[in-house]
Amino acid sequence: MYLEKINGPEDVKKIKIDELPVLAQEIRDALLVRASKHGGHFGPNFGMVEATIALHYVFESPKDKIVYDVSHQSYPHKMLTGRKEAYLSEQHYDDVSGYTNPNESEHDFFTVGHTSTSVSLAAGLAKARNLKGENGNVIAVIGDGSLSGGEALEGLDFAAELQSNFIIIVNDNDMSIAENHGGLYQNLALLRKTDGQTECNLFKAMGLDYVYVDRGNDVAALIKAFKEVKDSTKPVVVHINTLKGKGYAPAEKCKEQWHYSGPFDIETGKPLFDNVEEDYSSVTCEYLLEKMKNDSSVVAITSGTPTVMGFTEDKRKEAGSQFVDVGIAEETAVALASGIAVNGGKPFYGVYSSFVQRTFDQVSQDVCINNSPITMVIYQGSVYGMNDVTHLGFQDIPMLSNIPNLVYLAPATKEEYLAMLDWSMEQTSYPVAIKLPGGPMISDGSRVTKDFGRLNRYEVVQTGEKIAIIGLGTFFELAKEAAKLLKEEAGINATVINPYYITGLDEALLTKLKQNHDTVITLEDGILDGGFGEKIARFYGASNMKVMNYGLKKEFLDRYDVDAVLKENHLTAEQIVEDVLSIL
Amino acid sequence: MYLEKINGPEDVKKIKIDELPVLAQEIRDALLVRASKHGGHFGPNFGMVEATIALHYVFESPKDKIVYDVSHQSYPHKMLTGRKEAYLSEQHYDDVSGYTNPNESEHDFFTVGHTSTSVSLAAGLAKARNLKGENGNVIAVIGDGSLSGGEALEGLDFAAELQSNFIIIVNDNDMSIAENHGGLYQNLALLRKTDGQTECNLFKAMGLDYVYVDRGNDVAALIKAFKEVKDSTKPVVVHINTLKGKGYAPAEKCKEQWHYSGPFDIETGKPLFDNVEEDYSSVTCEYLLEKMKNDSSVVAITSGTPTVMGFTEDKRKEAGSQFVDVGIAEETAVALASGIAVNGGKPFYGVYSSFVQRTFDQVSQDVCINNSPITMVIYQGSVYGMNDVTHLGFQDIPMLSNIPNLVYLAPATKEEYLAMLDWSMEQTSYPVAIKLPGGPMISDGSRVTKDFGRLNRYEVVQTGEKIAIIGLGTFFELAKEAAKLLKEEAGINATVINPYYITGLDEALLTKLKQNHDTVITLEDGILDGGFGEKIARFYGASNMKVMNYGLKKEFLDRYDVDAVLKENHLTAEQIVEDVLSIL
Repeated sequence: MYLEKINGPEDVKKIKIDELPVLAQEIRDALLVRASKHGGHFGPNFGMVEATIALHYVFESPKDKIVYDVSHQSYPHKMLTGRKEAYLSEQHYDDVSGYTNPNESEHDFFTVGHTSTSVSLAAGLAKARNLKGENGNVIAVIGDGSLSGGEALEGLDFAAELQSNFIIIVNDNDMSIAENHGGLYQNLALLRKTDGQTECNLFKAMGLDYVYVDRGNDVAALIKAFKEVKDSTKPVVVHINTLKGKGYAPAEKCKEQWHYSGPFDIETGKPLFDNVEEDYSSVTCEYLLEKMKNDSSVVAITSGTPTVMGFTEDKRKEAGSQFVDVGIAEETAVALASGIAVNGGKPFYGVYSSFVQRTFDQVSQDVCINNSPITMVIYQGSVYGMNDVTHLGFQDIPMLSNIPNLVYLAPATKEEYLAMLDWSMEQTSYPVAIKLPGGPMISDGSRVTKDFGRLNRYEVVQTGEKIAIIGLGTFFELAKEAAKLLKEEAGINATVINPYYITGLDEALLTKLKQNHDTVITLEDGILDGGFGEKIARFYGASNMKVMNYGLKKEFLDRYDVDAVLKENHLTAEQIVEDVLSIL
Repeated sequence: MYLEKINGPEDVKKIKIDELPVLAQEIRDALLVRASKHGGHFGPNFGMVEATIALHYVFESPKDKIVYDVSHQSYPHKMLTGRKEAYLSEQHYDDVSGYTNPNESEHDFFTVGHTSTSVSLAAGLAKARNLKGENGNVIAVIGDGSLSGGEALEGLDFAAELQSNFIIIVNDNDMSIAENHGGLYQNLALLRKTDGQTECNLFKAMGLDYVYVDRGNDVAALIKAFKEVKDSTKPVVVHINTLKGKGYAPAEKCKEQWHYSGPFDIETGKPLFDNVEEDYSSVTCEYLLEKMKNDSSVVAITSGTPTVMGFTEDKRKEAGSQFVDVGIAEETAVALASGIAVNGGKPFYGVYSSFVQRTFDQVSQDVCINNSPITMVIYQGSVYGMNDVTHLGFQDIPMLSNIPNLVYLAPATKEEYLAMLDWSMEQTSYPVAIKLPGGPMISDGSRVTKDFGRLNRYEVVQTGEKIAIIGLGTFFELAKEAAKLLKEEAGINATVINPYYITGLDEALLTKLKQNHDTVITLEDGILDGGFGEKIARFYGASNMKVMNYGLKKEFLDRYDVDAVLKENHLTAEQIVEDVLSIL
């Protein structure tokens, strides 16, 4: 077995070129076994096996520096750069992250997880090299799906300015997470069709040299191409035509489904754990499809992640032109929604908390200054969400809630969410965002009759005294739990409040609390800095009211244990009660 | 005079085509007189006169909808859509804003001021039109300089998906604010050179139809082209070759200088008010040029606004390859800086507060997760900064200061700023941002010996009791003033603190204050929500310390009077003293 003997790129170079396909097969075998047991990004890695071998065969990493976009295709790279055990030995599977990570290896230069960043980041490496008068190759790897992102296109445009060695490998598997959307993909298709010969060429139009490799899963062809561009003194694109999921039939066939997978049975490709429970994705999709039927101005927008809002391929077909995938292009998704709203449509944009970070200016300028009545729903903005450092959902409250004009809502249950949607999709006064709660979806069957148009009215769910607990979204349940425990442990009948609104204070209610409360506790699912609780603390700043804010510490966590993080931040009923009793 | 009789687009259509150049001259005459007295964007408007006339001659605004990028070129549009008085009559100059504004006219669809948004916003108008089964043309106007921005490139890519009427006018004057940077400008040049005939065409590569108009300041030629694309059933780009500043010799000659101008003498083109005083722009430039001389790894980065950091054309030449203009591409600027830092360079990125908003995700992901030691300096993040609603500098504290790992500093004087730069440019432990103070630069000649590497140590400038005033950045002076007044009016000797750090609390000092203080006052130059003061309020939440936070209310202001806004937010020494005495 070749793979077992590879401790670094130098060992790849020892293998004869015509034996490298054997290594490729070994890598795929290991990837398959690991994926079937551990889960992870699937299709991107299977497609990049040969290109990764060829990169390490031709270039001298880490002197030559390879930067992977998203880096969800970096598993083969990790296997060839001293981390093979994490792919060969089950007890070491968790030794590595799912993305490049400079803490793991000198062959990784950035912790990356968002799309469309590799070209600009690598351009920085190249610029520093030039300034220092050093040499060596800098290589950015980027998938076709990531090309539609603003930062990637900016980077491609800027690259020509380097006027020095800079190699961009465009890994074109004719897929984003789902199918590609955008005019540039017509050009990629034409380039593939013409063996890279068509004169109209996006990359050349960006001022870059260009090489095409049709057989992007042929390691010899790739080595030849990479040798040609090695030590190039000009920025050059190497466009390689690869097959996403290559080497595993179910993944080659159902590319979208196999972009990422949980554990599965290798023989059948069937998932080991089938999640058919109702969740906020399916609830959203069902709601929107129903609404679309009765109103042709309703339109659902995604930026390359349609299933976050439940829109699998069949549902997208059902929605027809009322479903828009702008490709990975979050900025355009938000601006588009604003334009639709201004012209009388009813736009809904569903987006992960981690990726809404790409739209601060668009939310502020394109939407909120214009007061465009869009509905934006934030998924996985929770400690219970994705837990890789690059995909945390902890920052959406500070990011969104301090932008003027925006109404940011936090439902605690399915019923509250649907009532908010009912209001938001029909009103024309405010831009609205909704932060979905984390953890298992709670549905209590209650009828929500609240008029969300009367802004910033919190709801007192339990009237008590001395202590008021305001539990936002996810942590409304925790507020109720803490109140119960407080009753049990100290006989205190606390007031429990569901605030609903992240962006505004119910000043009348907060003022009234002063009458018979001396402590207000806030709970929120996100970092405390710049968040919801601090606004309550400011409100009471000059009064005698004590305020205790609970939420997450401002820090980047990586692959954390939820319960440990909750405990560290005193986000348990026991700790909250203990804390409050200690200051009484 | 034709212009005087134009009350709307219908009146433009009444003029014979061969008389339209007379109208164009009248518009330029009015623009020139107004600019010479009032100031404003110059070159962009002078270049777009003919195209604007042609647009209103051919299309039926507002049924046909025109969306201008940045909209700093919309003065001729305003003159032709019922707002001519604001350009002809001095007492009405301030009736209109410097940008499109739906509150002014049904011919304006968005309040716009940032670049690169028109294509995506207009795509939204078109999508809503399609959903509603309506017709009419949707036209996005965008300058060549704005094309390099991620949102614009995303929008161009998405446009092809519309598969319906959508017209993009690319106003190519071969200039951004300064000269263009990026590979795509080679393609624009080639298109201009070949009369639009070259096969390699950025717009076609984005899946769009394409028409070229070489004589972009010839109204008849433009009318012909616009008529051709009117009611097009496919997205199409009309690339027009215009002259920035056309019709005024000094502006045609010095395009960068005349992008925007203050009042000037029409005969000579000389500014009426010459500002030669030292400011944070010149101080920065001088500092960096000196540093570059001794260290080839120092590099200054701008995203299309080089003079914000003092780099006029001659200074850029002096810096050579150590100055990088990425074009209008803020996301790439930040990612590039991170890459440079990771590879051992010393990057400095200077950016307006209003435009740093475009980089939330890049600061968080590309820089802070990677802990890349970049230096980012934020200009005009102040109530004293630009005062158009689209260019406010109120949001940088909430946006930046809640991102983990970032060290965000606020100097109050030139000396503090330079000391921070000295530290930041040489350290390799943290990403650093510096918020420059607003108002006239204060230079007190003091020697700043503070070690900024010992994070979050505030400085007690005056030791007192009862009341502590923490004055951040701009408002450190106000803190001193308020303390002085407090002494005079109530005999209270307040403690005065310069906190320096926006991103962290000096917990030891704040705890110590509890010993002999009962009130802490915070002052900050930005909106209070998500800001600095709220963190202090949270810190003291469970204690007896009273906290009063002063800053700006969360709202979008437009063309405001600074003194009125300060007063409304109680940001005067008198009001602060009155407030604090009222709660004692």
